[in-house]
Amino acid sequence: MKSETGNIGIVRPQFYTFGEPPHELQLESGQKLGPITLAYETYGELNSQKNNAILILHAFSGDAHAAGYHEGESKPGWWDNMIGPGKAFDTNQYFIICSNIIGGCKGSTGPSSENPKTGRPYALDFPMITVGDIIQTQRYLIDHLGIERLLCVVGGSMGGMQALQWVASYPERVKCCIPIACTLKHSPQQIAFDEVGRQAVMADPDWQEGRYYGTGRQPERGLAVARMIGHITYMSDQSMEAKFSRRLKEKNYSFNFQTDFEVEGYLRYRGDNFVKRFDANSYLYVTKAMDYFDLSDGKLFPHGKTVPTRFLVISFASDWLYPSYQSTDIVKQLRVRHVDVTYCEIKSTYGHDAFLLEVEEETQLIKHFLKVTSKRP
Amino acid sequence: MKSETGNIGIVRPQFYTFGEPPHELQLESGQKLGPITLAYETYGELNSQKNNAILILHAFSGDAHAAGYHEGESKPGWWDNMIGPGKAFDTNQYFIICSNIIGGCKGSTGPSSENPKTGRPYALDFPMITVGDIIQTQRYLIDHLGIERLLCVVGGSMGGMQALQWVASYPERVKCCIPIACTLKHSPQQIAFDEVGRQAVMADPDWQEGRYYGTGRQPERGLAVARMIGHITYMSDQSMEAKFSRRLKEKNYSFNFQTDFEVEGYLRYRGDNFVKRFDANSYLYVTKAMDYFDLSDGKLFPHGKTVPTRFLVISFASDWLYPSYQSTDIVKQLRVRHVDVTYCEIKSTYGHDAFLLEVEEETQLIKHFLKVTSKRP
Repeated sequence: MKSETGNIGIVRPQFYTFGEPPHELQLESGQKLGPITLAYETYGELNSQKNNAILILHAFSGDAHAAGYHEGESKPGWWDNMIGPGKAFDTNQYFIICSNIIGGCKGSTGPSSENPKTGRPYALDFPMITVGDIIQTQRYLIDHLGIERLLCVVGGSMGGMQALQWVASYPERVKCCIPIACTLKHSPQQIAFDEVGRQAVMADPDWQEGRYYGTGRQPERGLAVARMIGHITYMSDQSMEAKFSRRLKEKNYSFNFQTDFEVEGYLRYRGDNFVKRFDANSYLYVTKAMDYFDLSDGKLFPHGKTVPTRFLVISFASDWLYPSYQSTDIVKQLRVRHVDVTYCEIKSTYGHDAFLLEVEEETQLIKHFLKVTSKRP
Repeated sequence: MKSETGNIGIVRPQFYTFGEPPHELQLESGQKLGPITLAYETYGELNSQKNNAILILHAFSGDAHAAGYHEGESKPGWWDNMIGPGKAFDTNQYFIICSNIIGGCKGSTGPSSENPKTGRPYALDFPMITVGDIIQTQRYLIDHLGIERLLCVVGGSMGGMQALQWVASYPERVKCCIPIACTLKHSPQQIAFDEVGRQAVMADPDWQEGRYYGTGRQPERGLAVARMIGHITYMSDQSMEAKFSRRLKEKNYSFNFQTDFEVEGYLRYRGDNFVKRFDANSYLYVTKAMDYFDLSDGKLFPHGKTVPTRFLVISFASDWLYPSYQSTDIVKQLRVRHVDVTYCEIKSTYGHDAFLLEVEEETQLIKHFLKVTSKRP
């Protein structure tokens, strides 16, 4: 086993399709969905006992490309600094799976996918989905990969909510769970930010009640505004001060409505960029799934009995979108049920983005936790 | 003097017009503006020494109607619980003036006013304004009212920024200053929230590059989105939890994009309501004036010498839009210059809205401070 860390190299996108009619999946809303394609990637090798599989779950706008490089691309996956030989999720030891989500727009079935009944994109005919539905589809993928019990489910932000849902839905199939910078339920403030983003999208006349596919127009301006709001909530007051302060783009105030401050330019850039890589209807569906998410009041243990899953709960001091008290609420709920849980608040100034940036601290915590968990029966 | 508090009764809007060409006002941008009308109201009587005048300055979306009732209306002014006989700003003792601002849309000259050069509304031909320009126009009003030195300038949020600017611009004309829940300068996070609001307005095709007056269309959806963002920042995580928690409008999730949660309904209502009473271009001009505002690094004392003005600085513990550290920054700057300053952080859970809600605490602090200040030479 190498001690230094390395890169994975070239990886390829994979897809699994299931739920062909008449075997559609029953969703929580009562509606059915099928066929369903899930995009995913894997890194490392599944061992013969099939007990070294780790499922990584991504945040709101993430995708299955967590590590390594796609052929011809120079930018690695979104958590590449955490996944690879010798890294936190060590591909010399573990078989890493990163699964995308339904409702999204990154290769899995979502509102921009073709509706088999009409031959056109679903748009708003796509059924509403929940985090429970997302995890149900991922279970099909894990079945397909021949894995009975995952060593670990882990993710930050919405990825952490998915990790918690895995335990709620299939406790016997998860040996340990690492929810990072997340919550048992969206607070009214989190719902409010999501709702404003949705209203920004739906207020854009180019949204066309969701039927913008193929019209040559899509709600670019509304989606960009929604993303700008998001980016403010991902950073902290401190990290914005450190990154931008009141620095101007030009020497003096413009005295017009162009970009005066660097922070304005950054937000506009991020908003415009997002539009190129994200589907506006997916924005609506996935934020709604997050708002519906609620595992509070014992719903993390819907079957009544305490689960054998071990937990490592991580939060960040300056994260005001998913504040630390939401992570300690998770811890409290676990302790009441005598679940084995370790909690760490990392003293970061990066705000919610910290789960992608505090690599050293996270690596130390996660590496040790996985090592100990692997040795347990 | 009565000891119990009472109401003012009927009040009437007043207007003062000045700066008729060729005597237009020179603005900080280098442009000129005139004629200028300022809307204002007064309560109580100016005494013969003319030393009992208090100038109240309003927040971003406020107006000159701070107290009492307009003829035929059942809703009092926005700070009625603070202004009146026996109240914090006791009309039995003080002559209270509340002045509106240029750039706004509440009776003072702004982008929706008629441009005398064209006979049509200014729209984006209205010059950019600063908080310094706003205070310059208010000084004309105070001159007109025959007041040499104000007993007090006071305001919350943008009103507090105006109060600070009064001291920076005309220190010898202000005996005491009460900046509440405000800052010496907008942080990048505050600029970012303002910028997203502006982008939401300008992304609305009905904005029409600002020339929507008389077209029968105005950027209602964009302005509503901007206001929804604002309302999230005015409340605290705690106060939203207390007011809405995750309560649903109906019994179950709708599984569509209608209103599920009460907090969503509240924000939509507030957004829609705002559109009826606020001009979208004023939204752009006034937020920009706030973002330009910067009295840090000694700019509160541009003339070098320390001012004789006394200060009472108030902030609120749960205010994350204008956090307490911004108020302690004001206090630090004053202490370095040996200015007489009292600081109080009120332990409120209401967030930024607290300056309108924590009436009892504010009354106690302000009443005492004004009494002591009045007795000083």
